[in-house]
This record gives sequence, structure tokens and C-alpha cells, in this order.
Amino acid sequence: MEIRTDLALEARELVKEDIKGMKMTTESTANMKITKMEVLSQSAAESLGKDKGTYITCEFKALTADFTAADERLDIIGRQIRELVPKSGTALVVGIGNHNITPDALGPLAAAKVLATRHISGDLAQSLGLDKLRSVCVVSPGVLGQTGIEVSELISGIIEKTGASCIIAVDALASRRLNRLGCTVQISDTGISPGAGVGNNRRVISKKTTGIPVIGIGVPTVVDAATLAADLLSPDSEEDGEKLRAMVEPKGQMMVVTPREIDLLIERASFLIGMAINVALHPDFTAEELLELSK
Amino acid sequence: MEIRTDLALEARELVKEDIKGMKMTTESTANMKITKMEVLSQSAAESLGKDKGTYITCEFKALTADFTAADERLDIIGRQIRELVPKSGTALVVGIGNHNITPDALGPLAAAKVLATRHISGDLAQSLGLDKLRSVCVVSPGVLGQTGIEVSELISGIIEKTGASCIIAVDALASRRLNRLGCTVQISDTGISPGAGVGNNRRVISKKTTGIPVIGIGVPTVVDAATLAADLLSPDSEEDGEKLRAMVEPKGQMMVVTPREIDLLIERASFLIGMAINVALHPDFTAEELLELSK
Amino acid sequence: MEIRTDLALEARELVKEDIKGMKMTTESTANMKITKMEVLSQSAAESLGKDKGTYITCEFKALTADFTAADERLDIIGRQIRELVPKSGTALVVGIGNHNITPDALGPLAAAKVLATRHISGDLAQSLGLDKLRSVCVVSPGVLGQTGIEVSELISGIIEKTGASCIIAVDALASRRLNRLGCTVQISDTGISPGAGVGNNRRVISKKTTGIPVIGIGVPTVVDAATLAADLLSPDSEEDGEKLRAMVEPKGQMMVVTPREIDLLIERASFLIGMAINVALHPDFTAEELLELSK
Amino acid sequence: MEIRTDLALEARELVKEDIKGMKMTTESTANMKITKMEVLSQSAAESLGKDKGTYITCEFKALTADFTAADERLDIIGRQIRELVPKSGTALVVGIGNHNITPDALGPLAAAKVLATRHISGDLAQSLGLDKLRSVCVVSPGVLGQTGIEVSELISGIIEKTGASCIIAVDALASRRLNRLGCTVQISDTGISPGAGVGNNRRVISKKTTGIPVIGIGVPTVVDAATLAADLLSPDSEEDGEKLRAMVEPKGQMMVVTPREIDLLIERASFLIGMAINVALHPDFTAEELLELSK
Repeated sequence: MEIRTDLALEARELVKEDIKGMKMTTESTANMKITKMEVLSQSAAESLGKDKGTYITCEFKALTADFTAADERLDIIGRQIRELVPKSGTALVVGIGNHNITPDALGPLAAAKVLATRHISGDLAQSLGLDKLRSVCVVSPGVLGQTGIEVSELISGIIEKTGASCIIAVDALASRRLNRLGCTVQISDTGISPGAGVGNNRRVISKKTTGIPVIGIGVPTVVDAATLAADLLSPDSEEDGEKLRAMVEPKGQMMVVTPREIDLLIERASFLIGMAINVALHPDFTAEELLELSK
Repeated sequence: MEIRTDLALEARELVKEDIKGMKMTTESTANMKITKMEVLSQSAAESLGKDKGTYITCEFKALTADFTAADERLDIIGRQIRELVPKSGTALVVGIGNHNITPDALGPLAAAKVLATRHISGDLAQSLGLDKLRSVCVVSPGVLGQTGIEVSELISGIIEKTGASCIIAVDALASRRLNRLGCTVQISDTGISPGAGVGNNRRVISKKTTGIPVIGIGVPTVVDAATLAADLLSPDSEEDGEKLRAMVEPKGQMMVVTPREIDLLIERASFLIGMAINVALHPDFTAEELLELSK
Repeated sequence: MEIRTDLALEARELVKEDIKGMKMTTESTANMKITKMEVLSQSAAESLGKDKGTYITCEFKALTADFTAADERLDIIGRQIRELVPKSGTALVVGIGNHNITPDALGPLAAAKVLATRHISGDLAQSLGLDKLRSVCVVSPGVLGQTGIEVSELISGIIEKTGASCIIAVDALASRRLNRLGCTVQISDTGISPGAGVGNNRRVISKKTTGIPVIGIGVPTVVDAATLAADLLSPDSEEDGEKLRAMVEPKGQMMVVTPREIDLLIERASFLIGMAINVALHPDFTAEELLELSK
Repeated sequence: MEIRTDLALEARELVKEDIKGMKMTTESTANMKITKMEVLSQSAAESLGKDKGTYITCEFKALTADFTAADERLDIIGRQIRELVPKSGTALVVGIGNHNITPDALGPLAAAKVLATRHISGDLAQSLGLDKLRSVCVVSPGVLGQTGIEVSELISGIIEKTGASCIIAVDALASRRLNRLGCTVQISDTGISPGAGVGNNRRVISKKTTGIPVIGIGVPTVVDAATLAADLLSPDSEEDGEKLRAMVEPKGQMMVVTPREIDLLIERASFLIGMAINVALHPDFTAEELLELSK
């Protein structure tokens, strides 16, 4: 049984020894703990099993019913995203995942909250007072099984047609710890692997493969049942591996641990991420103004 | 950490010693294993923590994409339900649970597949060739937090107005074992406790409280994360209970284990149960005929 | 071809002569025109084809994307409802209609926004600071074809069990004029006929049939195609009635006229009505506070 | 007031005189009337206001609750589509429209029923017995307001990446006659204009603009209220145009006429079209086999 996590922060915890070529800084406010992790050398990347680059992890209290666009967390995360995003050019926001599978619907639902503006320009934009909006396009490409098209193919076609200068890709993640579900956000400049968070590895979308910066944003929505099991058992446990696997992954089915109210978690987290992206891309507007525009 | 299960069959497994005043018989076909468990004495009921009465458990292979109304499993389960349901009078089908929470939506979704017929009668029914349909009414009462009304209150009001002769109540359950999710059905004549399957105990709905027979039908859709943990750890484990609980129920949140594709499981299982109830109540029609009528 | 309308105000317009035993007053603000129509005599009721009682009609500008809980219209309508609702006792809010049919989903969607409080009481309510909330229960009974139970039966069962002191029933209406769709609200104390607005007459729910005051709230969501046709043709038109009917109601199907974006109209109008009911029932709280509580 | 229709057949009816350079043939079976209209000359195209090419119109009885994959209409329409589609190469199916607006959701919902196969190939396909399936990809590009990307841009990106040999684009249409809603299908080889059916003209997608054959498939889901009005009024009516327009398009809002049960119409029509496309593309499989595979 293996520990699986999509969070660089948790990958770091799993490595017992010192890692060279890595820098970590932490900053805390009343509402948020922000850890910036820079993986600088190839050997550090290999130790961690994570690509070279910057990983920003925001940890905060669970989102509750009173969470609105006025919430400070949304602004803080928006500003963290803004730091990694190129300052000009068309931004392409991509909602990764399958909107029919609740724990995997974060990406498409977050994308649905993002304001598409690329088609509003010139005189029209000016007359609406929207000429300070940045050019943004938004797409939820679906999953390979529904479309027959790799997300990476679809995206590279769009980049060519739109001349996008960067990608912001949102995806559901798997973490190691249940207490992170819905209340941790990872932002990185290393790109993403669609489906990694939920068991289907697909071609990587990164600066290397697309030619433009790719900012990945993810929220853990599940813990693998096998990971929970591995964590519960002492490392020197003499349990029968076969029997254990049959218990946590019967018939090879992927089992995940989530809050019972997973639908609420997804709804709130996708609102948080969608609005934080709006805040990141349009510094001249408040979250509330952007919410109205996005309706 | 405690083992939690809504299945009488699993409750039996948890009791190590012999139980008197209990009868179990098993019957297997190519597609289904059916276990009939009769809890006959009060002391047996107490040992098990389950009320006196009959519990029929159907175990079968997971439902896959090719599952249709023509499937034999649907017919077999329909006939098992038929055995516990009074032969005449209006049947009241109740879909218990919250249709906004995926793992809890089984009841309302199954009820939506059940054919309501009570309002079709006399000449109209005859002219439609439907005079052989039994009188059925169907309700999904929602949950207390949304309605402010106990399910038991709502149901007893309906019984008075409709003169229903029996209740068939469908609810999502919690089992101990992940390999049961979506492929076990429990049918009992002991009534149900709405919300029991997902952590909210509400007033019991049974023959005692309603005055008419109550057939409960449930399908396990989750395993409590705490139950999985308890099962993984050896009984004499010296783990720190507090730490363990923080791990599987962080901040007291209820965590559950489900297949990643929980939405598909719920969709298929609710079709199975809804149609099996139709088959049980209308012996003169085939499942396919009833499916068309229910559209 | 006949003019059909569920609005008392439009029924008045259709009667050319003077009606005795009727009082009408109008009041206008920047955002709202409110017409109060009191039908005082039985002969006036017959002339109009509307029951004796009070009809308040609120007319306002169409709801647009920037409509929020802070909107003044929501408060004004809430206060109009409050005037007709008894000041104490449990209020039973009923969302009439079929949530699967977009133009008919207003009732269930509005009910879903109403805060149920009857189950929060005593010490719990006090500890939450909610002891000033009035007791409210909420139900969306579905339609006869899905349940086999008349809405009137279901409601009278609930009244007995909960001891409700009044009913607030929300339903989609048909108006004569397209320019009213989504921007007119009718509030009356004369009860409602479920399904009247969309062509299925069902038993009346009124003080006479339930024993308690029934406040009906409706928003026009459609105009019958036949009504539009009748209005377009001059009264002395010699058109062939048969041919005309085939054109606007082919094969007897009911055709309706709506905005193309009917889904948005329903979403906004149900938010308006649901929140206005909250405002009406809980005078000690603002709309925004009630919105948070209702999440 | 102008008559608006997306159907070539209705456009023909509107032209009173003879049109040269046009060929029409009709064929009827028990369940279907098929009219093939070939617009051969540029002058004919101009008279009709439709591009040169072939338009096949299938007229049939309204789809009712008993409509299934075994229905003959599905097969007949599938074979008509097959005639216009190139026999080999990857087919790209595009669901045009906004899935959040009921009358406009036909395209995305039909696309969701189409089997994507391009990613299943070689040994995998053979082992599944699927090597006789044609390569298909499927995309629902959303609408410009949500994405900021023209459908034509998105599609041309996909053609480049996938090497698709033809496009099959599905869209909701507007017809002149209410009796066509949901029971007429138009199939043409002239391409489509996304949004034409519901009032938003967008760039044409055709062989000329994409370089590959574009088969357009549409079902009328609405009649413009203005078109109904124009049809109701005698041509020499002296009605005040201004007043009339205010009546059928108040405040410039687009009003449409639909069956009250528009949701059912859309559900059934999208199943019909999605499955007919499957039948057209995979001649070695029956509709029922393809339905199972598409789940």
C-alpha cells in the first residue's frame, strides 16, 4: 500500500531526509497559512517526485454556509494566483475533470464561475466600462472517454487560434490527509496532468508541452482509501497485502474517502477558485463586481 | 473506534458467539445470493442490535453500463420484495434522504422511478388497460433540515388521507465492507429510521409507529471512514484513539468511503430499486412494460 | 379562442363595464407599482371570475444579472406578503408545481430558498441566536402524476400534524401579456388551485377547504399561445376557429410563449419569491441574514 | 413582422413563385415522410435564402414516453445521415448551443449521447470487439458568452489536431409552424451558423470555412413569437407595427413559443439525434448495442 498525494507539501513530508536544492517559506495571517515551496534542482525534484518549479499551498478553515464573494480568503488566494500569472495577453482558463462525477467536478464548476471576456472588446467594452478587463477565455474540455480528444490536443488547438499567453488549469486533487479536503489550495507553475487527481493519468500540460506558462490550481477533494489504509497501519505491519488491498479496493475499484456532504464541498470550493481566478486576472475590480459581471 | 453497519447480515458477523432465537437460510443462483435472516426472539434482537423481524439480503455482481430493465436481478429482487408486501390496498412508497447529497440521494431517485397509480382508476384506468395496476402513491419527503417536518409526521398524515395499507421505504445505508457498495440490497419488515444510514437518527417508521406494515429497502452506498479504520487496525491495537479519530473524522466531520464514481453507483442502484418495487407491486406486468408506463 | 389569465388585475381589464363591490388603489415608488384590488361582493367575484378577497399585484422592472438579496424589490414584496399573513403560529410554505418542467418549476425552486425553522427551537434556537425566528415548515408536494396524491390531501395531513396556522403557497401563473413575465407578482388571500397556471386544474386550496388562511403567491412565467393569438386577432375577425386552433395548439398540445431564456427567469423569480417569504416571516432579520441562514 | 424559419422546406413554402435550379422529391413510409430538396443553382439559393446543397427533412409523429432505441424512426434518420457523411476518417460531432437554456440545449444533450471512440484503437479495440467502430470525437464547445472563443475557432483547432474528415453539427432550430416542434429533423450538407436557431448569429461553419464536409442536423424546438404573430395576422392587416412588436417582443426581449413540456421534448429529441448519429457512423452495430456502449 502506497501513500498517494498530489500536494507537493505532503510529498515533502513523506521524504524523511533533508532535500537539497529546495526552499520553503511560510507566512501566516489570521485566516490563512501560505507555504511557498521552490523546487530548484533536478535532484530535489526527483527526491520529491514533483517537477522543478514553485508550489504555493494555502491552508485555511473549511468553507461554511456564510462564505461569500466578500470573504478575505478569496482575495488572498486571488493575489497568490496573480503572482504566478503573466501580466498581459489572453489568459486561457481550463476546467479539468468530469462534471458528471461529483468529486471530479471541481474544474468544470470553477471554470463556469470565471468571466470570459475575450469577445468583449473595443467600443463595446468601452461603452460597458469594461475596457479594463483583461482578455480571458474559458473552456471545460471534458474527459477523454466522453470526447475522444486528449485535453492536451484540445488546448494546443485553442492556444493557436486564440494566441493565449498563459493557461490556468483547475483540477480536483487527492491529498494524503482528510483534514485538507476542501480547505487547502495548491497553486503551481509546473503544469498539470489531467486526471492525475482521480486515477487517470493523461498527457502533461506544461510550459514544455504547450509553449506558454501553465499555472495549475488544485483543491484536494478526496483521499484514496488505499492511502488512508497505508497511513493507519504501522509501517512494519505484517498484514497480508493481498487481503488488505481486497478490503480497500475490492475488485480493483478505486475507492475514495470524502466528507458525506461532498456536493457542498465541491460547490463552495469551485466558487472560491473560480472567483479567485477572476480576482487574479482583473486587479481593477473587486470580487463582488466580478461576481455580478460573471452572472 | 466502532464498527458501524446498517445491514443485519453484517451485524450477525460482528457477534462472535451463537445467537439463539434466530434462523438463517441461504439460496444461491447464478446471479444472486439471497440470505433470509429471521430474528425471532427479543434476546436475539438485543444481541444483534436489530429489531425482531425478517431481513432478506440480496448479494450480486456490481451493476455495469449494460444494466437494463430486462436484467434478471431486477426481477429476483422484485419478487423478494413482493413476499413481504401485503397483497392488496394502496401502497405508499417513500424515498428517504436528501436528493442534494449524492450518497444520500438513493431514496428520492428510486422513488422517482416508481409508478404512481392511485389517481388513475375506474373508467380511465380501464380505457388505458391499466385496471390491473395496483393503487400506489409515491412521496419523497425531503429531510428535516429542509422542511422542518419529521418524515414520520408527514407519512402519518399521508396514511390518514390515503388509507394506505403498507409503506415501502427506500433509504441509503452504510455497510461495513466496501465490496458491498451498490451490490447488496437489504429488504426487511422491521421498518426504518430515516437518516440512520448517514448519521442523522430520526424517529423510527415501523408498524408500531404507523399502524401498518413497513417494508424497508436499503442499498449500502458508503462505509464510514471510522469503520474502515476500526477494521484495518487489529483489535488489540494500542493506537492513540484521540489521534486516530482526528485522522478519520477531522473536526468531527463525518467522512465516508465510496467508489470515486459514486454518481454512477447511485444512478444504477436507484433504477434497480425503483423498478424492483414496480415489479413487486404489479405482478401482471413485466419490468419493461412498467418502465414505459413510468416515463 | 379565449383570453386566459391567472392575474386578477388582467381579469379586471377584460371586463368592459363597471364592477360594483370592488375597490382598487394604486401606489407607486421608483421601483415598484403596487395595485391593491379588493373584491368585496359575490357579484363582483362573478363578474371577474375571481374569488372574493384581496389581490395585491406588484409590477417592477425585469430582474437582471445584478439582482441580489440586497435589492429593494425583495423587501417591498416581503412587506406586502407580511400584511396578509397571520402574525403568529407555524407557517406552512408550499411550493406548487413540477420541478422537472422549467416553466412550472417556480414553486419548488422558491420553496427551496425558504428557511425551515420549525425543528429548531428551545435551547438550541436560543444558543444559535435564532429564538426570534418564527416557526416555518416547507414542502414541495410534487404533482399528482408523480405522486398519486392530491396536493390538497397532502397539505391537510401536514396541517393536522404540525398545527400550522397559515399556508403560503407559491405557483407559476399564466398571464395575458408577455411584458409581465417574470416581472409581476400577485399576492392574494383567496387560496390557489394547483396547476391552474399551467393547464391542470386541481382541487382548490383555500381557507374554506383547509380551515386556515391561505396566501397565494404567483409569478406569470408563460402566456398561452392561444391567448396571444386571441389578442392578436381583432375581435370581429372572421378567421376559421378550427384552423386557428390547429395552428396554436397542434394536436391539442398546450403551447406557451416564454422568453427564450426561461431558465434564467425562473431562477431569478424563485430567488425573489423565496427570499421575500423569508423577509415576510422574520421581521427581526434582514434579507442578507436570512440568506445566510437558509444556505 | 417577418416570418423566420431555419427549415429549408418552410423557406420554400414562403416563396410564392416557381424556383428554377431546385429539385424536390418526397418519399413516405408508415412512420416517416422524407423530403429531399436539392438547391442546385446560385439563383435558387438566393430566392430561398438558403445555401446551395442538399436538405433532407424528416417529418414524423411526436415522440412519446414509449420511445426507445428500438424505434424505427431512429434507424431511418440514422440512414439519412449516413448518406451525407463521408464513409471513412475520423468524424467530429459538435453539440452547438447553451446547455443551461432549455430550448437551446438540444446540441449539447445530443452530443452527450454520441459514442466517442477515437481514443479506443489498436489492440484495446480488438480485445473489446470494437475494431469495427469508426473513429469519432465529440465536443460541446459552449457559447461565446461563456467561453470567449468562437465555435468556429475551437472547431478548426480540433480539426488540425485530430485530422477529422468531417463534421456533424447538431443545433436547435426555429421553425415557422408549432406542429413541427420536436417532430421534424433537418439534415443538410451546407454547414451551420451556430446560434442562428435562437437569435445569435455567429460565424458559419461549412466546408468553405473548415475545409471538410459539414453535415448540419437540427430539430425545431421553438417558433419565434413574432413569427407566430406574423402568421396569425392577415397580410393586408393594418395593425400598428410598433404596437404589435411591443406585444410580442416587449422591451426587445426575444419571446418564443414552445410546448409547455419543453424539457421532455428536448430530452427525447436529443436522444433521437444522438442515437441516430451513432447508427449513421457505425453500420455494423444496432442502435441497442450502441446505446449500451455509449453508457
